[in-house]
Amino acid sequence: MTKQGTLGVAVIGTGRMGADHVRRINEVTSGARVAAVVDIDAERAKQLADRIDGCTAYTDPAAAMGSPDVDAALIASPGPAHEAALLKAFERDLPVLCEKPLTPDADSALRVMEAEQKAGHRLVSVGFMRRYDAEYLKLKALLDSERFGRTLMLHCKHRNVSTPPGFTNQMMINDSVVHEIDTTRWLLEQEITAVTVLRPTPSSGAPEALSDPQLVLFETSGGSVVDVEIFVNCGFGYQVQCEAVCESGSARVGDGHALVSNTAGRWGGDIDQDFVTRFEDAYDREVQRWVDATRRGTVEGPSTWDGYAAAAVCEAGVRAQATGARTVTSLIERPALYR
Amino acid sequence: MTKQGTLGVAVIGTGRMGADHVRRINEVTSGARVAAVVDIDAERAKQLADRIDGCTAYTDPAAAMGSPDVDAALIASPGPAHEAALLKAFERDLPVLCEKPLTPDADSALRVMEAEQKAGHRLVSVGFMRRYDAEYLKLKALLDSERFGRTLMLHCKHRNVSTPPGFTNQMMINDSVVHEIDTTRWLLEQEITAVTVLRPTPSSGAPEALSDPQLVLFETSGGSVVDVEIFVNCGFGYQVQCEAVCESGSARVGDGHALVSNTAGRWGGDIDQDFVTRFEDAYDREVQRWVDATRRGTVEGPSTWDGYAAAAVCEAGVRAQATGARTVTSLIERPALYR
Amino acid sequence: MTKQGTLGVAVIGTGRMGADHVRRINEVTSGARVAAVVDIDAERAKQLADRIDGCTAYTDPAAAMGSPDVDAALIASPGPAHEAALLKAFERDLPVLCEKPLTPDADSALRVMEAEQKAGHRLVSVGFMRRYDAEYLKLKALLDSERFGRTLMLHCKHRNVSTPPGFTNQMMINDSVVHEIDTTRWLLEQEITAVTVLRPTPSSGAPEALSDPQLVLFETSGGSVVDVEIFVNCGFGYQVQCEAVCESGSARVGDGHALVSNTAGRWGGDIDQDFVTRFEDAYDREVQRWVDATRRGTVEGPSTWDGYAAAAVCEAGVRAQATGARTVTSLIERPALYR
Amino acid sequence: MTKQGTLGVAVIGTGRMGADHVRRINEVTSGARVAAVVDIDAERAKQLADRIDGCTAYTDPAAAMGSPDVDAALIASPGPAHEAALLKAFERDLPVLCEKPLTPDADSALRVMEAEQKAGHRLVSVGFMRRYDAEYLKLKALLDSERFGRTLMLHCKHRNVSTPPGFTNQMMINDSVVHEIDTTRWLLEQEITAVTVLRPTPSSGAPEALSDPQLVLFETSGGSVVDVEIFVNCGFGYQVQCEAVCESGSARVGDGHALVSNTAGRWGGDIDQDFVTRFEDAYDREVQRWVDATRRGTVEGPSTWDGYAAAAVCEAGVRAQATGARTVTSLIERPALYR
Repeated sequence: MTKQGTLGVAVIGTGRMGADHVRRINEVTSGARVAAVVDIDAERAKQLADRIDGCTAYTDPAAAMGSPDVDAALIASPGPAHEAALLKAFERDLPVLCEKPLTPDADSALRVMEAEQKAGHRLVSVGFMRRYDAEYLKLKALLDSERFGRTLMLHCKHRNVSTPPGFTNQMMINDSVVHEIDTTRWLLEQEITAVTVLRPTPSSGAPEALSDPQLVLFETSGGSVVDVEIFVNCGFGYQVQCEAVCESGSARVGDGHALVSNTAGRWGGDIDQDFVTRFEDAYDREVQRWVDATRRGTVEGPSTWDGYAAAAVCEAGVRAQATGARTVTSLIERPALYR
Repeated sequence: MTKQGTLGVAVIGTGRMGADHVRRINEVTSGARVAAVVDIDAERAKQLADRIDGCTAYTDPAAAMGSPDVDAALIASPGPAHEAALLKAFERDLPVLCEKPLTPDADSALRVMEAEQKAGHRLVSVGFMRRYDAEYLKLKALLDSERFGRTLMLHCKHRNVSTPPGFTNQMMINDSVVHEIDTTRWLLEQEITAVTVLRPTPSSGAPEALSDPQLVLFETSGGSVVDVEIFVNCGFGYQVQCEAVCESGSARVGDGHALVSNTAGRWGGDIDQDFVTRFEDAYDREVQRWVDATRRGTVEGPSTWDGYAAAAVCEAGVRAQATGARTVTSLIERPALYR
Repeated sequence: MTKQGTLGVAVIGTGRMGADHVRRINEVTSGARVAAVVDIDAERAKQLADRIDGCTAYTDPAAAMGSPDVDAALIASPGPAHEAALLKAFERDLPVLCEKPLTPDADSALRVMEAEQKAGHRLVSVGFMRRYDAEYLKLKALLDSERFGRTLMLHCKHRNVSTPPGFTNQMMINDSVVHEIDTTRWLLEQEITAVTVLRPTPSSGAPEALSDPQLVLFETSGGSVVDVEIFVNCGFGYQVQCEAVCESGSARVGDGHALVSNTAGRWGGDIDQDFVTRFEDAYDREVQRWVDATRRGTVEGPSTWDGYAAAAVCEAGVRAQATGARTVTSLIERPALYR
Repeated sequence: MTKQGTLGVAVIGTGRMGADHVRRINEVTSGARVAAVVDIDAERAKQLADRIDGCTAYTDPAAAMGSPDVDAALIASPGPAHEAALLKAFERDLPVLCEKPLTPDADSALRVMEAEQKAGHRLVSVGFMRRYDAEYLKLKALLDSERFGRTLMLHCKHRNVSTPPGFTNQMMINDSVVHEIDTTRWLLEQEITAVTVLRPTPSSGAPEALSDPQLVLFETSGGSVVDVEIFVNCGFGYQVQCEAVCESGSARVGDGHALVSNTAGRWGGDIDQDFVTRFEDAYDREVQRWVDATRRGTVEGPSTWDGYAAAAVCEAGVRAQATGARTVTSLIERPALYR
């Protein structure tokens, strides 16, 4: 439990995901700072670095990872650049968070894996972020508990509003279904042994040459079957759902952000048992917002006036409770400071 | 956008809420550190401080707030101790996050408010954490947009599993309904002008002398009516729900963590439009976990093996997609490092 | 179990509700027929009667109820006409289904009750149709079981899209809230002992002079408290909801036609246990449609072709199941009779 | 609109389904009566017939269908007996409602179809009852409207609590999935052109020799793809769900008896627009119950006392509304007749 040893991170690649990770490390994450940003566009890297104390801009990942300020690397450059950056990080024994995909194909991934084994210990975490989603974590915990027995099937849906120009059939697998591939392997702790793809007549909303939607089937080493609807031009929203079918119950996530299960004649979900779990995120957000405002030199959130008004209404409430009668509250005029 | 000027916070009071806030600032919050902990129990404060770099233990709030390491205070001591601590903070011009209640009654709150006005600017944020809950924030945004017109009524439910020994009728108002008091004032931006309390025959599950549940009614300065079911021994869970009834629609939060609304012949909720909003929390959690593990000198999360396996399955998937045939994947044997 | 003794019903009043009841008895109800229709508009009654075999038109309820063909009466005339019709029915010892309200006020209802007592046995059923709604019946059964203990509160919502011209504040009670009055008395099996009405500032969508919405509170002889939101110009739909708060759980109806309950850390609903309960209504509808079509001399619904196609696909399915291979079906060309 | 010409039905087969249809025609259906029951167990048929006025028992379907009292036949005997009964019905030109399956295989179904074509007009309705389920009817109407464009995929789940002894893999297709076969053909108005079956490692809850669950895939003549989870020993309930994925939205039925759809950034369902649609079934049930009670010589349902009490509370409510004050109701003592 220490704030010492703040982690100096080099963020490699500052496109949409990279820039967002810079913001995240800088403003959201506890215990880390952005020590270096790397982009082949030198101007872009410099502009970003200039806004962060103690942050240096680079165009070469190796140079950034060679800096004594850098304790770890976050790779968010395009997939084809990952292998070289990872190998450099291994040379320096730097831990790496690598955005998915690890590398663009299995052969290059094998080479990375061999290099990491030579390093003798794990250095890489791959950015499959669903493993950190609150709902998926609940589903994983439920399956691990084996409360419903073994998992027999997964029904998955992965829907995007629309695709950018140039999106291909291969990208439906490599960029989209890859998440269900990881989810399947993680939830079941089994490898995928066979894949089948069914392609219905495409939606009229799909770009020409894109076979959208598709139904992808996985068979796993433990004998489970998984179906994945991938529909990347569904038009109505970004919707990721997963239902696990187990021996004595099923459970799904992705409907309005809650885990809903079927078991023993009942469907439904858990009810929190206290405010600590129910409002954990709210407390986190509250304190972060207060720290942010204070560091900016401002004061926000519920004011002393709000505290006073609550106290005054409580007093009326306690009287109303005791007497059974409608009880009028009385507040002083609101001071200028609180208007 | 800077990590410089990390905020030194004095946490005053280290009971359940205070200790949790120490953990939060230390491990979750970006840009702040616990510089001082204060408790009348010197041993308790010392034990907590010893585990945090650069943190000093105190028994006197004034002494802690006098330290040059302290830039701000978080008050989590019992309500009756708040007034003195707040006045000390004002003397030192320190920003304060004060756990609710501000003070135990309206008179003391008035004195605090007068002192803050003498300081000439706002220093206090009161810890009504519901204002930071994701669902309530969505409800607030919907009401502020006036998309459904003016808000006419609120229906609120506040249910606890059970009460600790010594819980009184007054505490049902002062400790529980106080949240609905603040929620009402915040959502409607109106003051509460009258309160009525109805008390049905108590549940057999309620402790003797506790009139549980109760129905509390608020009338507001803008002519709205609010009903609050307060049921602190409901037995089944901690459940906080709120439905706003507006001129052309209604919306409720608290069912399975989503905002559900009625309007124009349809009930339902919003669907996220991209992965950034849908998985924002997952990304935050992913990076925080990676930073935490790295600082501990460990590597966790999806491994290079997971990245390789995903790539190998993607390759099979793309072939399956192109051929229409069931396609077997081929993986190397899992290296020892990744078992 | 007999079709003999088909009940001859006199329908008194042939406005919207009356005409609908004529249709219902004629086309939906088993074991009854419309033997007489009564309306002060002789032409209207005659037109209706002419379309029904063995049905006679009347303008005088007493004359209709005097017919030897009439075994029972359904009163759907305006409320002020109910008392006279009921007294006539009692003279003839006819069972009556009387649309709500029984009579327009308590005094006239008392007179009817005295007359029925003189008859010495019950003759009247009042048309509070919610007692026959599938959801309310489930809620009633749950409360009667006392599985969740005693019922402490009811939270009710009664929303209409909009009101016809001339709708008054009194009608909000007499025509709308009267349903919650009966629901409360039926669900709790208690009398209502006190009523309070709160009137927020009206919606801008409400007609002038109508105080809409209102919050109506009931206290009952058993110490329960009931709140009713009545909002007759909500704009978005007709929505009737009721949540019963009990000692160890709560349950609500009116969200998407299912009973949802909270108990012991779980929210959710029951899952049917077999097809007989799940598809009971479908079976009823299937047979009724078949009888209706057959009596009209037509044949509808799934055809022999549908039966053949299902058999052919089953055969392919059983082969696919046995071989593990994709199996093509083969159908003959669709004969003209089934196109 | 007539009660004349009540349809005389011969029910052939009086097992579980047949006996239930006898009850349905006798007690629920308007305009029909059971004129004959047929079972190879003469005693069983006689016992059933004896309880119904004007009903004759038979052991031979042909004899029953030859009776002048019989206008139509409902076949609920075992599947292998259907062909002979259907051919006899065609000889007598009798309309038939035939429980599924039409016949046990495609060849026999072809023979039936040929015979019906010789008759020159349709006589058969097959008992695929899902086409009459309220939810499926809503889904069908939505798809037919093409409001969401063309239907691209169906995701179906068909779950049973458990199977009786002797249930085979083939029966999973022929008795269970046959419903999804018909549903697919009806919803899409397309033929099924290919079938594939995937069989995960069976659940430990499945009887030996049963490969349960299975994933069945259909391809259709219009290029749609359908997946069906069939899980006949799921343990938790009877659950039938179907989600249609269309070009600009999706919609599913089977969760708590409502149609839920996704479209244009919103998930949710329709809200009824008036009480006629919302309470249609309640009205039907109300009148049927009243007719049933009256024919039995009893009076049930809300009594005159209920009508009086509602009127008295309304009077208090109108006063409370006008005065703003809590208003006590006053009821006479409840007369003995209504206790």
